[in-house]
Amino acid sequence: MLRLYDYLESGNSYKVRLLLHQLGVPFERVAVDILKGESRTQAFLQRNPNGRIPLLELEDGTGLAESNAILWYLAEGSAFLPASRLQRAQALQWMFFEQYSHEPYIAVLRLWHHAGVLERNRAAVPEKRERGMQALAVMDRHLAEQRFFVGDGYSVADIALYAYTHVAHEGGFDLSDHRCVRDWLERVRARPGHVPITYAA
Amino acid sequence: MLRLYDYLESGNSYKVRLLLHQLGVPFERVAVDILKGESRTQAFLQRNPNGRIPLLELEDGTGLAESNAILWYLAEGSAFLPASRLQRAQALQWMFFEQYSHEPYIAVLRLWHHAGVLERNRAAVPEKRERGMQALAVMDRHLAEQRFFVGDGYSVADIALYAYTHVAHEGGFDLSDHRCVRDWLERVRARPGHVPITYAA
Repeated sequence: MLRLYDYLESGNSYKVRLLLHQLGVPFERVAVDILKGESRTQAFLQRNPNGRIPLLELEDGTGLAESNAILWYLAEGSAFLPASRLQRAQALQWMFFEQYSHEPYIAVLRLWHHAGVLERNRAAVPEKRERGMQALAVMDRHLAEQRFFVGDGYSVADIALYAYTHVAHEGGFDLSDHRCVRDWLERVRARPGHVPITYAA
Repeated sequence: MLRLYDYLESGNSYKVRLLLHQLGVPFERVAVDILKGESRTQAFLQRNPNGRIPLLELEDGTGLAESNAILWYLAEGSAFLPASRLQRAQALQWMFFEQYSHEPYIAVLRLWHHAGVLERNRAAVPEKRERGMQALAVMDRHLAEQRFFVGDGYSVADIALYAYTHVAHEGGFDLSDHRCVRDWLERVRARPGHVPITYAA
């Protein structure tokens, strides 16, 4: 059986749990408390030298890291990966956008709130707030013309971007000016097999 | 003909130029001076709302952004993309590692040197230096057991990580403790069709 090392509040972990559930693939969940440093222990660094969750362990013990690479692995051959070469690249475009232009601002501000370290990091907050708002504006503009991020169908790109966007308010982001993003969140929530971030398998 | 909007000193742009050359695919290059704000003009934002280079424009005018998504698009069906499902996911794992745990530190310090803004950003330098060194250590450990990043062959994962690693010293990073990384840089440089970062097509 697949084994997932993850943290329940992590959007990156949630991406994988959500897709596994929508694929109907059973898995064993191993909780790793990143706030207690459990992803940086010697034992965990043996599994992932980069010290991050989620980590998917395959049946032969091979470990696969990076949430969006895990999504790709799980989705190959399914309807969650677009069928055309161009649309596959567009899905990756949005997944790299998520990790470079979205997660470092929107997820990190939420983590700072949760971990109670917002005050300690206050000098960095305004830039993170501004860049996160820029990412949401780019998404809103794209979703004004598209029901989902790539082509006409729900894909791994939507899963990757949903994970932290739907909890952006927990980091202080206000989505009230981004109606297209809010409507898309509803469309994602309405997909068969959708589960909330606290779903633990 | 493919059209590439890029900046000669950008490692992200170089990834695409290097693969296009190794594939033998002709392209037209459009220089965008990011230091003069040319990637944030209204005209460029029409092409890429996220305001970043490289941007690949296909023959029908479709724009594709995010360097590693462009690599994936160009490499599909070639030997630069691994043949197995697991190895494709491992290639993406390293490409997401590059954009999340490597480029924001190693590329950004180099850019600050080049743009003359290191002093203005000096409060952020120690953390960027430390995290960049962590990324290089993760790479060195992996390359102690592998000739290339995925399986036994040169792939898009090597191109993605080579781009900013081979110029890391321009951002003040010292590779002398990372012999495995240095040996891998030599193996990448020895590949057929290799061109330097200043190669402009």
